Amino acid sequence: MAASSMDENRAPDTYYLYVTKTGIVMDDLPIHVISSCNLDIYTFPFDIQNCTFTFNSYKLYVEDIQMFFAESVDITLRNSLDVMTTKGEWELINMLCEKNVLPMEITNSSFDLLIYHIILRRRPTMYIVNLLIPSCFLIAVDLFSFLLPPQNTDRAAFKMTLILGYTVFLLLMNDLLPATGNNLPLINAFFSLCLALMVASLLETILITNILCGSSRYPPLPQWAKVLFLDYITRLVCLSRSDQNCDLEEYRIKTVLCKPVKILEGEAIHKIPPTLQELKKISRDLQSIVQQVEKHFSSDQSEEEWVRLGHVIDRLLFILYVVFLSVSFITIFVYWFYWYNVTASLV
Amino acid sequence: MAASSMDENRAPDTYYLYVTKTGIVMDDLPIHVISSCNLDIYTFPFDIQNCTFTFNSYKLYVEDIQMFFAESVDITLRNSLDVMTTKGEWELINMLCEKNVLPMEITNSSFDLLIYHIILRRRPTMYIVNLLIPSCFLIAVDLFSFLLPPQNTDRAAFKMTLILGYTVFLLLMNDLLPATGNNLPLINAFFSLCLALMVASLLETILITNILCGSSRYPPLPQWAKVLFLDYITRLVCLSRSDQNCDLEEYRIKTVLCKPVKILEGEAIHKIPPTLQELKKISRDLQSIVQQVEKHFSSDQSEEEWVRLGHVIDRLLFILYVVFLSVSFITIFVYWFYWYNVTASLV
Amino acid sequence: MAASSMDENRAPDTYYLYVTKTGIVMDDLPIHVISSCNLDIYTFPFDIQNCTFTFNSYKLYVEDIQMFFAESVDITLRNSLDVMTTKGEWELINMLCEKNVLPMEITNSSFDLLIYHIILRRRPTMYIVNLLIPSCFLIAVDLFSFLLPPQNTDRAAFKMTLILGYTVFLLLMNDLLPATGNNLPLINAFFSLCLALMVASLLETILITNILCGSSRYPPLPQWAKVLFLDYITRLVCLSRSDQNCDLEEYRIKTVLCKPVKILEGEAIHKIPPTLQELKKISRDLQSIVQQVEKHFSSDQSEEEWVRLGHVIDRLLFILYVVFLSVSFITIFVYWFYWYNVTASLV
Amino acid sequence: MAASSMDENRAPDTYYLYVTKTGIVMDDLPIHVISSCNLDIYTFPFDIQNCTFTFNSYKLYVEDIQMFFAESVDITLRNSLDVMTTKGEWELINMLCEKNVLPMEITNSSFDLLIYHIILRRRPTMYIVNLLIPSCFLIAVDLFSFLLPPQNTDRAAFKMTLILGYTVFLLLMNDLLPATGNNLPLINAFFSLCLALMVASLLETILITNILCGSSRYPPLPQWAKVLFLDYITRLVCLSRSDQNCDLEEYRIKTVLCKPVKILEGEAIHKIPPTLQELKKISRDLQSIVQQVEKHFSSDQSEEEWVRLGHVIDRLLFILYVVFLSVSFITIFVYWFYWYNVTASLV
Amino acid sequence: MAASSMDENRAPDTYYLYVTKTGIVMDDLPIHVISSCNLDIYTFPFDIQNCTFTFNSYKLYVEDIQMFFAESVDITLRNSLDVMTTKGEWELINMLCEKNVLPMEITNSSFDLLIYHIILRRRPTMYIVNLLIPSCFLIAVDLFSFLLPPQNTDRAAFKMTLILGYTVFLLLMNDLLPATGNNLPLINAFFSLCLALMVASLLETILITNILCGSSRYPPLPQWAKVLFLDYITRLVCLSRSDQNCDLEEYRIKTVLCKPVKILEGEAIHKIPPTLQELKKISRDLQSIVQQVEKHFSSDQSEEEWVRLGHVIDRLLFILYVVFLSVSFITIFVYWFYWYNVTASLV
Repeated sequence: MAASSMDENRAPDTYYLYVTKTGIVMDDLPIHVISSCNLDIYTFPFDIQNCTFTFNSYKLYVEDIQMFFAESVDITLRNSLDVMTTKGEWELINMLCEKNVLPMEITNSSFDLLIYHIILRRRPTMYIVNLLIPSCFLIAVDLFSFLLPPQNTDRAAFKMTLILGYTVFLLLMNDLLPATGNNLPLINAFFSLCLALMVASLLETILITNILCGSSRYPPLPQWAKVLFLDYITRLVCLSRSDQNCDLEEYRIKTVLCKPVKILEGEAIHKIPPTLQELKKISRDLQSIVQQVEKHFSSDQSEEEWVRLGHVIDRLLFILYVVFLSVSFITIFVYWFYWYNVTASLV
Repeated sequence: MAASSMDENRAPDTYYLYVTKTGIVMDDLPIHVISSCNLDIYTFPFDIQNCTFTFNSYKLYVEDIQMFFAESVDITLRNSLDVMTTKGEWELINMLCEKNVLPMEITNSSFDLLIYHIILRRRPTMYIVNLLIPSCFLIAVDLFSFLLPPQNTDRAAFKMTLILGYTVFLLLMNDLLPATGNNLPLINAFFSLCLALMVASLLETILITNILCGSSRYPPLPQWAKVLFLDYITRLVCLSRSDQNCDLEEYRIKTVLCKPVKILEGEAIHKIPPTLQELKKISRDLQSIVQQVEKHFSSDQSEEEWVRLGHVIDRLLFILYVVFLSVSFITIFVYWFYWYNVTASLV
Repeated sequence: MAASSMDENRAPDTYYLYVTKTGIVMDDLPIHVISSCNLDIYTFPFDIQNCTFTFNSYKLYVEDIQMFFAESVDITLRNSLDVMTTKGEWELINMLCEKNVLPMEITNSSFDLLIYHIILRRRPTMYIVNLLIPSCFLIAVDLFSFLLPPQNTDRAAFKMTLILGYTVFLLLMNDLLPATGNNLPLINAFFSLCLALMVASLLETILITNILCGSSRYPPLPQWAKVLFLDYITRLVCLSRSDQNCDLEEYRIKTVLCKPVKILEGEAIHKIPPTLQELKKISRDLQSIVQQVEKHFSSDQSEEEWVRLGHVIDRLLFILYVVFLSVSFITIFVYWFYWYNVTASLV
Repeated sequence: MAASSMDENRAPDTYYLYVTKTGIVMDDLPIHVISSCNLDIYTFPFDIQNCTFTFNSYKLYVEDIQMFFAESVDITLRNSLDVMTTKGEWELINMLCEKNVLPMEITNSSFDLLIYHIILRRRPTMYIVNLLIPSCFLIAVDLFSFLLPPQNTDRAAFKMTLILGYTVFLLLMNDLLPATGNNLPLINAFFSLCLALMVASLLETILITNILCGSSRYPPLPQWAKVLFLDYITRLVCLSRSDQNCDLEEYRIKTVLCKPVKILEGEAIHKIPPTLQELKKISRDLQSIVQQVEKHFSSDQSEEEWVRLGHVIDRLLFILYVVFLSVSFITIFVYWFYWYNVTASLV
Repeated sequence: MAASSMDENRAPDTYYLYVTKTGIVMDDLPIHVISSCNLDIYTFPFDIQNCTFTFNSYKLYVEDIQMFFAESVDITLRNSLDVMTTKGEWELINMLCEKNVLPMEITNSSFDLLIYHIILRRRPTMYIVNLLIPSCFLIAVDLFSFLLPPQNTDRAAFKMTLILGYTVFLLLMNDLLPATGNNLPLINAFFSLCLALMVASLLETILITNILCGSSRYPPLPQWAKVLFLDYITRLVCLSRSDQNCDLEEYRIKTVLCKPVKILEGEAIHKIPPTLQELKKISRDLQSIVQQVEKHFSSDQSEEEWVRLGHVIDRLLFILYVVFLSVSFITIFVYWFYWYNVTASLV
C-alpha cells in the first residue's frame, strides 16, 4: 500500500498481514525505499536538510481504506536512532509526521496521505578539517608572504608555487564537494574568493617587482605622485619615518662625494712636475673606480623615489588586502554561523 | 502502451485502468524511463538541449487504438516544475507536445504517436566559477608576468610553474567536462588556446633570456636589424626614448674613461727616478683593476645593442600577445553570448 | 527463514530441506547477504571491527519453530577461514555466536534469534607503507630543512614546495581513506597536524627571512629584547658562544676603521704643498671607496643585533618545533599502540 | 530466436510475430544486446574497429527453421545512422552482413547463421586536442629550454619542473586512455618516448652544469679531447669561431697582466728611503687586491677549456636530441597516418 | 546442475538436454559465472594466477548422477583461446581438469566434483611502461643530481621538486595497482624504497649545504675528524689530490698576504713628515680594503677544512647511495625474474 516514488522495492516479499477483529489491519511489509530529496546545499557543510516521504494508497479512496500511523513518531524516531548502524555523514536530528488527504478531482473523492518529514544535519567535522582548515592555512601563508623582502623576484615565484598548491588543493575539494544543487554553495564562493585574493596578491607582487627592479629606466616621479604617495600615503600606512630619514641622509653623503669628481673632470692639465702628474693620473683612475663602484652599489635619486614608491604601494596594498580578507572572511563565517543557528532553531 | 526505447521499466507494476462510459480509457501506469538524448555540447556550458520522448502503441494500429494527451502540455510543464525535486544541473525551461502518426508500409495502416519535446537549459554558474574564472585568472597571471624583469631567468621558471599549475587545473576540468558529444565543445578550444598562449609566451621568454644573457657571444647586430628593430619598431612599441638616451650617455662616459688606459698601455718605460717608477707601477696596477671592474660591471656596445634588441622584441611580442589574446577572447565570449541568446530565442 | 536486513537474496534458489525422523529440519539454503556494519574507524588503520548478523523467523513464534546452530561456532570459524578466498584488507580473527529471544509484546510471545558476532581486523600494512611512512618522510624533510641557511629566501621556497608536495600527497590519502564513520579517525588529525606543523614552520621561516633581510630598515633593538633574546635565550638554546665572540670582534675592528673617516670628513683644507694636497685627495677618494665597500660588505651594529636575534629565534622555534613534534607523534603512536592492544585483548 | 552472447535481454517482452500466408514469419522482437568486441587499440586514437554480431537459432536445425535478413544491409545502415542519437566517441562508417551455416557434427545437421559486421571509427579530435597537442607543447618547451644559458643551474631546475608538469599530464592521460587491449597502443610508446627524451635532456643539463661550475677542480683537459672536441666537433656543430677568438684574446691580456705580479713577489726589499718603502708597501697591497679581484672575476686557461668543452658538448647533444626527436616523431606520425589510411581503405 | 558460488546466473534460460539411448545426458546450459579467485599479487606485475572452478550436483549423490567432462580439456583450452575476444590484461596459458568426489559425512555418500584449474598470466607490458620505467627514470635523475655543484642550495630545491614529481607519480600508480591481496606486492616495496632513497639523498644534500654554507660559524674541525675524513676517507673515495693541493697553495698565499696587515695594525705612529704620514694613511685605508675584499672573497683555514669535509662526505654518501641502490635494485629484479621463471615452470 506504499509506493516508492523512485525505485522498485528490492526487499524480500512477505505475504502476511496482521488482521485484528477490530478491523485494524497491520501491514509489516518491509520496504527498501531509495528516494530523492531536494538538497539545499547553499550553507554546505553546515546544512540541515528536510526530506519528505509521502505514503498513500495507489487506487483505493479514503472511503475504502483509511491509513494511520502504527506508532507515535517519537517512538519511530527513537527506534530509528537505535537501528541506524552507519552513523556516517548525516545525523538524524528530528522526525515529524503528518496525516493529510489528497483530493482527486475526477472522482470527487480523496486519498489518505501519510507524510514523514525527516530532518537531517550534516556532520561538518570532516569538511572543516579537510577543506576549510587547509584553505585557511594556505591563505595565511599568502598573507605572511608579504613579509618576504620585495626587492628580489623570489616573492613572485613563491606566490606562484602557492597558487599551484591551491590548485592541487582544489582537486581535493572537487572529490569532497557534493554535486551541485539549486545554487552554488557558499563554500564555493569562499574558495573562489581565496583564489582571487591569491592571484590579486601575486599580480601586486609582480607590479612591485617591476617598480623595484626596473625603476632605473623610468622617468622621474611626477610631483603630484611624490606628494600623494611619499607624503600622505606613507603617513597613512605608518611606514617608519626613521627609515626614510636614513635613506635621505645616505643620499646627501653620496651627492657630496660625487660633486668634486665632476668638477675635476673638466680641469685643464697644465704644467706640473712628473710626480704630481703621475699622482693626478692615479687620482683620476681612482675616481673612475669610485664612479663605477658607486654606480653599481647605489642608484640615483629618481630611482630611489621609485623604490620608495614601490615600498609605499606594497604596504598600502597589503593593508587593503588584510582589510578585504578580514571583512569577507568575517562575513562568510558570521553568515555560516547565523544560518546554522537559524536553521537549527527553525527545526 | 508506451515503450521506453532504452531500458526495462523498473517502477512497480499496476494493473488498473480508468475506463469511462464514453469509451475513454485512462492509463495511469507510472513509467520510469531512462532514455538517451542527443546532446549538442558545442556551446557548453551555455547549452540548451532539446530531448524528445515518443510514445506509441506497439502492435495496435490507429483503427484499434487512438492516443490522446490526458492534459494540456502547459499543465504537464507546471506539474513537472512542481515535482522536480533535485534542481541540479539542468533547468526545465519548456515542454512542447505533438501528436503524429507513424505510417506502417506493410499493412497500409499507421500508429498514433505522442511526442514530447523537453527543453532543458544547463545552469552554467558552477562551470563559470570552477572552470572559466580560474582559467582567466591564470591567463591574467601569465599576461602580468611580462612585467617581471626579463634580465634574469626567473621569468622562465615562473612561467614554467604557471604552466604546471594550468596542467593541474586541466585535471580538474577533465572531471567536470561532459563526455564528448558530436563535436568538440568550444570551451575545450578555449582551454587549448590558453595553454597554447602560455606555452608561446614561455618560448618567447626563453628567447629573450637567451638574447639578454648570451649576447656577449654574439656577432655585432647587422645594420638592417639595427634600423628595423632599434629604430622603427622601438617607436612602434612606444618604448620611452629617455631610456635609450641615458643608455647612450652612459656609454659615452665609459668610452672616454677607457681610452687613455689603452694609450698608456703602449707607453715605453724610459729612465725615470725610482719614486716615479714606483708610482707608475701603482698606476698600472690601478688601471688593471679599473679594467677588470669595468669589464665586470659593464658590457660593450655590440652587447648593449643586443640587449636593447631583446627589450624591443619583448615589448613587441607582448603587444602581439595582448592583441591576439583580446581578439580570441572577445571572439569566444561574443560567440557564446550570441549562441546562448539565439538558442534561447529559438526555443 | 532468514531475512537479510539489507538486500534481496541473489543466490540461486534451492527447494529442498533435510527432514530427519527426530523432527530436526536442516535448511542448507545458501544466502548471499550484503549487510551493513557500524564501523568505528577512530583508530584506523589499526582498527578491529565487530559485525553482527542476526537471523530470526519472520512470522513463526518460538512455539512453532525453534532455531539452533547446526554446528559449533568453532567449526564455522575454521570452515570460514578455509573458504575465504580473497584475503584482502580484512582478516577474520574470531567468530562468536549467541542464541537469544526477541519478545513480541502484542502477542505475548517471542521469536528465536540466532546471532553471529564476526570480529575482523584490518591489515594495516598497505596503509602504513602508503600513508604513514611517506608522511613521516615529508615531515622529516621539513624538520631537516631547518638546517638550510636562513640568510637567503631559498628556505621559504623550499618549504613551499614541500607543502605543495604534501598537498599532492593528501590527494593520495583521500583515495585510500575510508568513508567517514562516527567520528573523525585519528589518522586524519595526524595528517592535519603534519600540515599545520609544516605551515607553522613556513611562517617561521618567512619571519626569520624578514628579520635577516629587512633588518637594515628596523629601529635599534630595544634593551629588554637584547637582554632577553641575545643573553638568556641564546644561552637557553645553546648557541655556541664562539660564534658570538667572533661577531663582536669583527665589529670592533670595523668601528675602529670607520671612525677616522668621519673625523677627516670635517677637516678644513688649509695651505699645504700641491703633492700633499694631491695625496690628500687620493686619500679622500680611497676613503669613499672604503665607505662604499664597507657599506656593501657589512652592516651596522643595530642590524647585526637584529640578525643575531633572527638566529636566536630561529633556533628557539626549531627547538619548540622539535619538542611539539615529538610530543604529538609519541602521543599518537602510543595511543594507536595502546588502542590496538586493548581492542585485541578485549576480543 | 537470437541469443546475445553476453547478457540477459533487458528490453520489454513482446509476444507477437507477423505470420504471413507465404510461410514467412517476421519477428520484431526488440533486443537490447550488450556484447564485447575485440578492440585492436594499437593505433589509438586513430583506430577502426570491426565488431561482429552473430545470430542463430539455439536448437532448431536448418531443416526446421531458415533465417533471412528482413531488409537489405544498406537500409539497416541508413536506419542505424538515422536513429543513432548519441554520436559520441564512435562513428559508424559501414555495416556488412553475411549468411552462413554452422555445422553440428553430432547430429550431422547445421544451423543458419546471420552475421553482421559493424565497422566503427573512433573520432580522434578530443584525443588530439587533449593528449597529443599538450604533449607536443611540453616537448617543444623542453627543446627550447636548450636556449637557456647553461652557466647557471637554473636550466636543471626548469627542466625538472617541466618533467613534473609532464607527470601531472600523464595523470590526465590515464583517465582518457582506453583499458589496454591486445598490445600496448603506439600512443603509449609516444608518451614514454617524450618522457625519456625529457629525462635524457635533463641528465645532459646536469652534466653540462657540472662541467661549467665544477671545472675549476678538474685536471687540465687531455690533448686528444682538446683536438677532438674543441677542434673537430666545434666545427661540426657550427659554433661561431668569433666567440672563441675573443675568449683567447681576453686570456692573453689577462696573462700579460698577471706575470709582473709574480716576479715582484720574489724581489728582495733592500735599503730604500721611507717614502719609497711606503709606496712599495702600497704597491704590494694593491697587487694583492688585483690578484683577488682577478681570481674572482676570471678563471685560468684549463678551466676555460673545460667551459668551452661544456659548450661544445651542449651544442652537440642538442643537435643529437633534435635529430632523434625529429626521426622518432616523423616515424610515429607517418605510421599513424599510413595505418589510418590503410585500415580505412581496407574497409 | 552447476552452482556458481558467487552470483545468480544471468544467461538466458534453455530448457533442453540431449538425452542419448546410452544413458548419457548432455546439458548445454550456458552459464555466466562470476567467481572470485584468490590472487597472489606478491610478484605483481609478473604474477601467474591459478583459479579453480568446481562444479558439483547440489543434491543428487554419486549413486544417482555421475558427472563427466564432455570433451578433453585440451579441446576446451583450444576453444577458449579461440573465443576469448578481449585479450586484455590476462593471458590464458593453461587449463587443467580433475574429477574428484566430495564425501558427505551425514549420509555416508558422496558427490561427483568436476574441477577446472585455469592458469592465467598477467601481461606486464603496460605496467613496465607506465610504472617501472618512469620510476627508474626519476631515480636516475636523483642519482645524477649528485653531479649538481653542492655549494649552492639549488640542489636541495631540485631534489625537493623531484620528490614532488615522484609523489604525483605515486598518484598515477595508485590508479593502476590492483586492490591489495594477501600481502603487500613487491612493487610497493620497490616504490617505497625509491621514495626512501630520494628522501635520504635530499636529507644528505641539506646536511652538505649546511656544512658548506654555515661553516664560517663552526668551531675548527677536531683533529681526529681531520685525520679520518680529510686523509683516509678522501683517499677511499678517490677524490683527486690535485684539487686538494691547489687549495692548500691558495691558502698559503693568502696567509702570507694577511700577516703584515696584522702587524702594521699595532705599529705606533711616531714623528714622521706629513707626506709620509699621508702615505701611511693611504696605506692603512688600502689595507682595510684589502681586508674587506679578502674577507669577502675567501675564508679562513678552519672554514676551508669544513668545506673539504663537506665534499668528502658528499662523495662518500654518494658512493654509499650508489651501492645501496644497486644492491636493492639487483635483488628486486633478480627476485622478479626468478619468481617469474619458477612459477612459469611449475605450471
